[in-house]
Amino acid sequence: MIVVMQRNATAEQIAAVMKKVETQGLRTHLSRGEERTIIGVIGDDRPLDREQFEVLDGVERTVPILKPFKLASREMHPLDSLVPIDGLKVGAQKLAIIAGPCSVESRQQILETAFAVKEAGAIALRGGAFKPRTSPYSFQGMGEEGLQLLAEAREATGLPVVTEAMSPEQVELVGRYADVIQIGARNMQNYALLNTAGQSGRTILLKRGMMSTIEELLMSAEYILAQGNSRVILCERGIRTFEKYTRNTTDINAIPVLKQMTHLPVILDPSHGTGKWEYVTAVARAGVAAGADGLIVEVHCHPDQALSDGAQSLRPEKFAQMMAECRRVAEAVGRIV
Amino acid sequence: MIVVMQRNATAEQIAAVMKKVETQGLRTHLSRGEERTIIGVIGDDRPLDREQFEVLDGVERTVPILKPFKLASREMHPLDSLVPIDGLKVGAQKLAIIAGPCSVESRQQILETAFAVKEAGAIALRGGAFKPRTSPYSFQGMGEEGLQLLAEAREATGLPVVTEAMSPEQVELVGRYADVIQIGARNMQNYALLNTAGQSGRTILLKRGMMSTIEELLMSAEYILAQGNSRVILCERGIRTFEKYTRNTTDINAIPVLKQMTHLPVILDPSHGTGKWEYVTAVARAGVAAGADGLIVEVHCHPDQALSDGAQSLRPEKFAQMMAECRRVAEAVGRIV
Amino acid sequence: MIVVMQRNATAEQIAAVMKKVETQGLRTHLSRGEERTIIGVIGDDRPLDREQFEVLDGVERTVPILKPFKLASREMHPLDSLVPIDGLKVGAQKLAIIAGPCSVESRQQILETAFAVKEAGAIALRGGAFKPRTSPYSFQGMGEEGLQLLAEAREATGLPVVTEAMSPEQVELVGRYADVIQIGARNMQNYALLNTAGQSGRTILLKRGMMSTIEELLMSAEYILAQGNSRVILCERGIRTFEKYTRNTTDINAIPVLKQMTHLPVILDPSHGTGKWEYVTAVARAGVAAGADGLIVEVHCHPDQALSDGAQSLRPEKFAQMMAECRRVAEAVGRIV
Amino acid sequence: MIVVMQRNATAEQIAAVMKKVETQGLRTHLSRGEERTIIGVIGDDRPLDREQFEVLDGVERTVPILKPFKLASREMHPLDSLVPIDGLKVGAQKLAIIAGPCSVESRQQILETAFAVKEAGAIALRGGAFKPRTSPYSFQGMGEEGLQLLAEAREATGLPVVTEAMSPEQVELVGRYADVIQIGARNMQNYALLNTAGQSGRTILLKRGMMSTIEELLMSAEYILAQGNSRVILCERGIRTFEKYTRNTTDINAIPVLKQMTHLPVILDPSHGTGKWEYVTAVARAGVAAGADGLIVEVHCHPDQALSDGAQSLRPEKFAQMMAECRRVAEAVGRIV
Repeated sequence: MIVVMQRNATAEQIAAVMKKVETQGLRTHLSRGEERTIIGVIGDDRPLDREQFEVLDGVERTVPILKPFKLASREMHPLDSLVPIDGLKVGAQKLAIIAGPCSVESRQQILETAFAVKEAGAIALRGGAFKPRTSPYSFQGMGEEGLQLLAEAREATGLPVVTEAMSPEQVELVGRYADVIQIGARNMQNYALLNTAGQSGRTILLKRGMMSTIEELLMSAEYILAQGNSRVILCERGIRTFEKYTRNTTDINAIPVLKQMTHLPVILDPSHGTGKWEYVTAVARAGVAAGADGLIVEVHCHPDQALSDGAQSLRPEKFAQMMAECRRVAEAVGRIV
Repeated sequence: MIVVMQRNATAEQIAAVMKKVETQGLRTHLSRGEERTIIGVIGDDRPLDREQFEVLDGVERTVPILKPFKLASREMHPLDSLVPIDGLKVGAQKLAIIAGPCSVESRQQILETAFAVKEAGAIALRGGAFKPRTSPYSFQGMGEEGLQLLAEAREATGLPVVTEAMSPEQVELVGRYADVIQIGARNMQNYALLNTAGQSGRTILLKRGMMSTIEELLMSAEYILAQGNSRVILCERGIRTFEKYTRNTTDINAIPVLKQMTHLPVILDPSHGTGKWEYVTAVARAGVAAGADGLIVEVHCHPDQALSDGAQSLRPEKFAQMMAECRRVAEAVGRIV
Repeated sequence: MIVVMQRNATAEQIAAVMKKVETQGLRTHLSRGEERTIIGVIGDDRPLDREQFEVLDGVERTVPILKPFKLASREMHPLDSLVPIDGLKVGAQKLAIIAGPCSVESRQQILETAFAVKEAGAIALRGGAFKPRTSPYSFQGMGEEGLQLLAEAREATGLPVVTEAMSPEQVELVGRYADVIQIGARNMQNYALLNTAGQSGRTILLKRGMMSTIEELLMSAEYILAQGNSRVILCERGIRTFEKYTRNTTDINAIPVLKQMTHLPVILDPSHGTGKWEYVTAVARAGVAAGADGLIVEVHCHPDQALSDGAQSLRPEKFAQMMAECRRVAEAVGRIV
Repeated sequence: MIVVMQRNATAEQIAAVMKKVETQGLRTHLSRGEERTIIGVIGDDRPLDREQFEVLDGVERTVPILKPFKLASREMHPLDSLVPIDGLKVGAQKLAIIAGPCSVESRQQILETAFAVKEAGAIALRGGAFKPRTSPYSFQGMGEEGLQLLAEAREATGLPVVTEAMSPEQVELVGRYADVIQIGARNMQNYALLNTAGQSGRTILLKRGMMSTIEELLMSAEYILAQGNSRVILCERGIRTFEKYTRNTTDINAIPVLKQMTHLPVILDPSHGTGKWEYVTAVARAGVAAGADGLIVEVHCHPDQALSDGAQSLRPEKFAQMMAECRRVAEAVGRIV
C-alpha cells in the first residue's frame, strides 16, 4: 500500500508512520511531492490492516497496491482452471448449460423438467431443496425429500445435480445427493458456509451477492480456495441497482472482467439477472457472446404453478429455442453448446 | 393485489386469471378502463405467489396492495413495543446508547473500553467475538474466549453485553454470555439464523443488510417474530450506494420511515454508516434528532492498534464529547441520554 | 391509476377522493377488500398529478396503471421505426456501427481515424467538438473548428457524422455540420435541449443518463417526439452503480427491454459502458447478441495522446478485430455488420 | 498521481512512463516493491490526463493523490466562506431556512405562501418559474410571469427570492427578478449553465445531482468559482439508490463531509431528500443536528392542488411546527433559527 499524508503533516507524523510500518517487518519508501508526501510500503502488506494507518495523526488516506486475493488471482495462476461437473470440464470449450426449476416441488415436476432440459442439451440439472425466501410465509423448499427427488432425477436422466446448501450443517447432507453445491447470492459472505464448502472438497458454484463487488466475490472464492478446494465456479447473477424495471441488473461487464482477473470459470444466470422470462434468452445470448463458460437457467413446465420464481422461468419449448440460439452464438465465438 | 391485464387481453385470458384467483378461495373484482382492465383480489392474498399470475397469458403485471409483513407492522400493533436490554426499555424516553470496540481483542482492551464507555454514559457494551471479515486472511475474532472476556467486563462494569452470532449453532453459545444477540448486516437474510434467533427468546439486535430495502428488513424481523420472539431491535447501519467517499451511506430517512411502519424500536449505527470517525458524531446527533431510539457506536482506546474497524472507532474522549452533544440534541427532541 | 386507501379510511375520505377524480372528468370504480379499499380511475389519467391524490386524507398511495409515455411506446406503434443516418436505415437488418474518437483534436487525428474506421466497416464517424467535462481544467473541445474538421472528414471519407450539442443554441450550429445530433448522458434531462432537438427535425442520438431509468429515457424521447420529430435513436451507455471496477455498469437487460417497450431503434456504447478498452470488444459482442441495432465505439489512433477517454478507446487494429468478431455474432442472430 | 505498473512490467515500459511524465515538465520518483513497481509524479499533475498513462504498455492503473478541485477546497481556503442572501450571511451562526412552493402557480398562491413562511421564520422564499419535468405532458412552470409574481411576493413580504434557471440564456432573465439563482439537480453538470452562473456574479444555490458524487458536486462548484464568482451555496437533496420506499435517499453523511472538504456553506433539502411530507420534519431536524447551514423546504397551502411535488410539501402549520422543532435542535448545536 501507499500512505498519503495530509498537506500539513509534520516530520514527526511522517516518522511515526514509517516506524509503524517497519515494526511489522516491512520497508518504507518516502516520496515528497510539492503538495503531498507519500510513503510506499515495500513487501507483502496484505496482512496489515490499512485502517490502523488511516487513524495515525497526519495521515489522509491509504491506497492498496496489491490485490487482496492471491489464490483466486490469474496473476498467481495464469492458466484457466477447469472445474469438473461430472464428466464435463467447466472452463473448456464446451459451455456448461445448467437448467431446471427454481425449487423442487414434486416428483413429477422434477422428472418432467429434467427430461426436458436434457433433451434440449443441458449438461446438468438445477433445483433447490432448501430455499432462502424473503418472507417467512413463502414456500421454503422440500428439504431432504427434495434432495432425494433430485437424486432420482439424476438416476433417470444421467444429469448431474446442482443444488444449494444454506448453512454449514447442510453441506454434508447436500453433498450426499448433489454433484455441485451451490452457495447462493444471499450467502456469498456467509463465511462459516464458505469454510465448510472449502473443506468439503466438492465442486462449488458460488453466486455473486446482489450488492457485492467483483472483488468481494473473489475474496469469497478465496475463502474456499484457502481451505484447499480449488473446484470453484463463479456465477454472475445480476446486481441491485436503482433500475427497477428488471428484478436485477445483469452485470455483463463482470464476464470479461472476471475472465481477466481470475483463472476460475465464470457462468451467467440470466434468469435472476433479468427476473422476467421474456428477457432471459436475449441475455443468455449476450452472456455467451461476452465469453461466459456456461449458463444457469430456470426452466419450469408450468410457470403459473411454480412455487417460486415462476415469472423468470422458461417453459421447456422456450428453453429449447434459447439453446438453439445460444448454440449459434457460441459457434460464432469459438465455443460449443 | 391487483392484476393489470395487457391492453389487448382477451375475455378468455381475463376469465382465466379470475378463475385462478377464485380457486385459491379468494374473490375478484373486475374493473374495465379505457386502455386497461384490472382485476382486484379481495381477501388476504399474502400467501399467493404473485409470480404465478404474472406468467398467465394476457397479464402485464401485478401490484401488491397489502404489506407483506404483519407481526412487524404498526398497523396490526399500533403501540410502540418496548424491548428490554437488561433493565432498560428500548423504545421509551431514554435512548439506548451501546458502545464498545468492533472486536474483543484482549482482556485489557475490553475492560478499559468498557469502563470508559460506561463513564461516558453508555447503557450497554458492544464487542464482537465472532467477526465476519471480507478476507480470509483478516482477524476473525477470539471466539468463545472473547465471549468470556465480555462476560468479565459485564461483571466488572455492570453493563449488559451485545455481541454477534454468525450461524445458528452459535446462538446458544452466544446466548450463554450475552444479553443481546446481534445479527449482522451480512446475515440479515440468513434465514436459518433468524429462525434460531426467534426460538431463543432473547433480545435480538437485527442490523439492516447493506443491500436490503426497508421492507426486506421488516420481513427479516418477521421471521424472528413469527417464532414467537417479539424482542427485536432494528438497526440502520448505512447502505451501499454509488457514493464511495464514505464507507456506506447512512439512510437517515429510514429512521422516521421505520418508526411509522413498525412498532419495533429503531437505533442507528453511525460508525458503519460513515466508516470514518470524523463524521460519527455529526451523524450520531442527526440520528437522535431524526427520532432514533438509540445508537450503537464503535469505541476503541487505541484505534491505531485495532484489529478491525480502527478508522471508524472513536477514542473514549471523543465518545464522551459525542455523548455530551447527543444529550443536548436528545433534550431538544424530548428524549433523554 | 388506482388509489389505495389506508386501512382505516372513512367513508368521507373515500368520497372525497372519488369526487376529486370526477371533477377532472374521469370516472371511478370502487373496490372494497377486507383490509383495503381501492379506487380505480377510468379514463386517460396521464394528465393527472398523482401526488395531488397522495396527500388527500386517508390515502395510502397511488399506483399508475398506464405507461406515462405514448409516442415512444410500442403499444401505440407496434412496428419498428427505421431511423435514417444518411443512407442507412437504423433498426433494419444491417447494424449501425458508429466509431471515432471521443474528441476531435486535430485535422490529422480525425482524418486518420475516419479512414481507419471506414476501412474496418463503420457506417458513421463519431467525434465531439463540444465536450462536457467534470473538471473546468480539462480540455473542453475544439468548438466550431472541430465541427469543420468533422465536415472535412465526411467529405474525404463519405462517412456521415455524429456529434454532440450541449445546449439549445448549439443545435442549429451543430446541425449545419452533422448528420446526427447527439444528446449526451448528462443532458438526457436537459428539457430545453430536448425541445430544440425535437424542433430541428434532425436525426437525434439520445443517450441514457447514467442515473436514469429506462422509463425516464423513454420520457425524454417523448419530449423529442412530441415536437413532431420521430427520428430518435436510443443509446444504452452504462449506468452508475456501486460497482467501481468498471467506469459504469453496462445495462445489457436494457436492450431487450427497450426493444419490447418501444419502436425506436436501440444501440449500445460499450466504450462508456465499461470504461476500459480491454472489455469493449466482449461487451460489444454481447450487445449484438442481445439484439442491439448498432454500436457506438470510441477509436483513437494514439490513445496515449488522447485528450479525453484514452483509456476506453480502441486502437484501429483492435477495432477491426472487434468488427470481425461482431460480424460473426451478428450473423448468428440474423443481422449483418 | 502515482502510476502502478503491472507485475511483469519491463524496464523499457517503466522508462517510457517516466519519460512521458518528464516531457510534461514534472518529476518522477521510482519505488520498486517486491510485487509491484510504482512511479510517483512530483508536481501539480492536475492538468495531466491520467488516462493517457493508463493505456501505456505495462501500466496497471493510476491513482490520483491531489484532489481535483482547488478553489472549492478547504485546504486552499481554510476559513468558512459566508455567502450573502440579501442581508443574511449564509454559513454564519443563523441558519438559512428557505421555504415556499415547488412551483409558482398563481398570484394568490405565492403571496399566501410567502406570508405564511415568513411568519414561521423563513429567511427567503423559494418557488420555481421554470420547471424541469420528467414528462412533456406535465406543468412546465409559468415562466417570466412566475418571476414577476415572485418579485411581487418579495415586495410584499420583504423576503428575498430563490428560483431556478434551467439554461444559460435564462440566467440573465432570472437574475433580474431573483436574489439567488438555483441550479437544479438535473443541471448540476450542465457546464454551459455553470459558466454563465459564474459570470453572473450572483449568489448561486447549487444542488447536488441525484447520482453525483460529493466530489463531482465540488467540481461543479469549481466551474462557478473559476469564473470569479465565490457566492456558491451547496445543497444536498438526496441521491438515487436501490431503496424506493422514499423518493430519494438523503445523504446525511454529506453534511459533515462537505463541511470538512470545502469552505462553502451547505444546506439540506429534506423535501426532495424524502419525497413524502410525513418524513420532512424528522429529516430537517437531522440536517440541523448534523451541521447544515440551512434548509430549503417545500411548503404549499393546498398540497392537494399543487401542480408539482404536492406529496412532499408541508402545509404552513406543519412548516411552523418544523421550524419550532428545528429551532430547539439548532440551539442544542450552537446555531440559531
